[in-house]
Amino acid sequence: MDRNEAITRIEPHISRKRFEHTLRVADTAIELAERFNGSTEQAELAALFHDYAKYRSLGELKHWIIKSNLPKDLLDYHHELWHGPVGSILVEFEHGIHDSSVQDAIYYHTTGKAHMSKLDKIIFIADYIEPGRSFPGLEEVREAAKTDLTKAAWLVSRNTINYLMQKNNTVYPDSFYAYNDLTRQMNGRTD
Amino acid sequence: MDRNEAITRIEPHISRKRFEHTLRVADTAIELAERFNGSTEQAELAALFHDYAKYRSLGELKHWIIKSNLPKDLLDYHHELWHGPVGSILVEFEHGIHDSSVQDAIYYHTTGKAHMSKLDKIIFIADYIEPGRSFPGLEEVREAAKTDLTKAAWLVSRNTINYLMQKNNTVYPDSFYAYNDLTRQMNGRTD
Repeated sequence: MDRNEAITRIEPHISRKRFEHTLRVADTAIELAERFNGSTEQAELAALFHDYAKYRSLGELKHWIIKSNLPKDLLDYHHELWHGPVGSILVEFEHGIHDSSVQDAIYYHTTGKAHMSKLDKIIFIADYIEPGRSFPGLEEVREAAKTDLTKAAWLVSRNTINYLMQKNNTVYPDSFYAYNDLTRQMNGRTD
Repeated sequence: MDRNEAITRIEPHISRKRFEHTLRVADTAIELAERFNGSTEQAELAALFHDYAKYRSLGELKHWIIKSNLPKDLLDYHHELWHGPVGSILVEFEHGIHDSSVQDAIYYHTTGKAHMSKLDKIIFIADYIEPGRSFPGLEEVREAAKTDLTKAAWLVSRNTINYLMQKNNTVYPDSFYAYNDLTRQMNGRTD
């Protein structure tokens, strides 16, 4: 699916602001894929569809979690976490995108997970650092993303958990598993 | 087992400094048990034995984790986490303390866990706030512990995870499960 075709399919489903964010995530993801020898096609496709399910009603998101084989404990956590997993299913169901790497990157773009692929990391980071974003700690991540994909993903993971804990929110287990796994990768280095 | 008998059994196994810490934890735990209608006997016993295994060699701790039914993933995390779970076994094996409430409080005193009992919380908090301790954030926990055991446990949990993440350490899953569970208890209140 080329960019124009993808855009035609996504645009009606999300807000104008979200659509502009999506295009910036796609450009950032392509840059990262080029920089770190990933597939620019998969990066672009996953980025374009990463927020595809974000404007579905809570009822519809819940319906998909219940009727599909998504983990039911998602329902015990903040609904902000639902659009990634549900999006990974909807892109196949509604648009025939059957590519588990792309679907995983969409699924885990909010939380991360243990053992993230290069594409998972690219989308996780691109969503966080795209040029429209602005919040404390961001420059450090942008700097890391110039040379070190794992370090950048680790910073996103750590910052996200810190942010949630500052707001007295619960943290979905995959976020913790991502943090522990990336921390191990960072600490295991000799450089 | 009375206090003198317990002391006779513990003192040879830990350093002088650790022994003094242990006595302060016991006094603090008794105070908390009195304040929140818990068993002072169980609080005292669990507190006196909470660091019982702390000075075993890493080889011996590892041996107990491997040969007992403790979770093997403890071995993938910092060895500082091992003395609680191993201690909960050794107090039974070496001293005949067969009280699952006391043993659980010893087991989880470093990490906490989801669904902590009153006794679990008392030991978790007493270890953190005993009068010999001094570090940032402690006064807020001491203040909370005067009126609200769950809030105090939640603060200990949150501070501990923050501390580990600041040091770029991994965090054992039970620590996260404790945080999420205590956060839910805090957020679910109407007061």
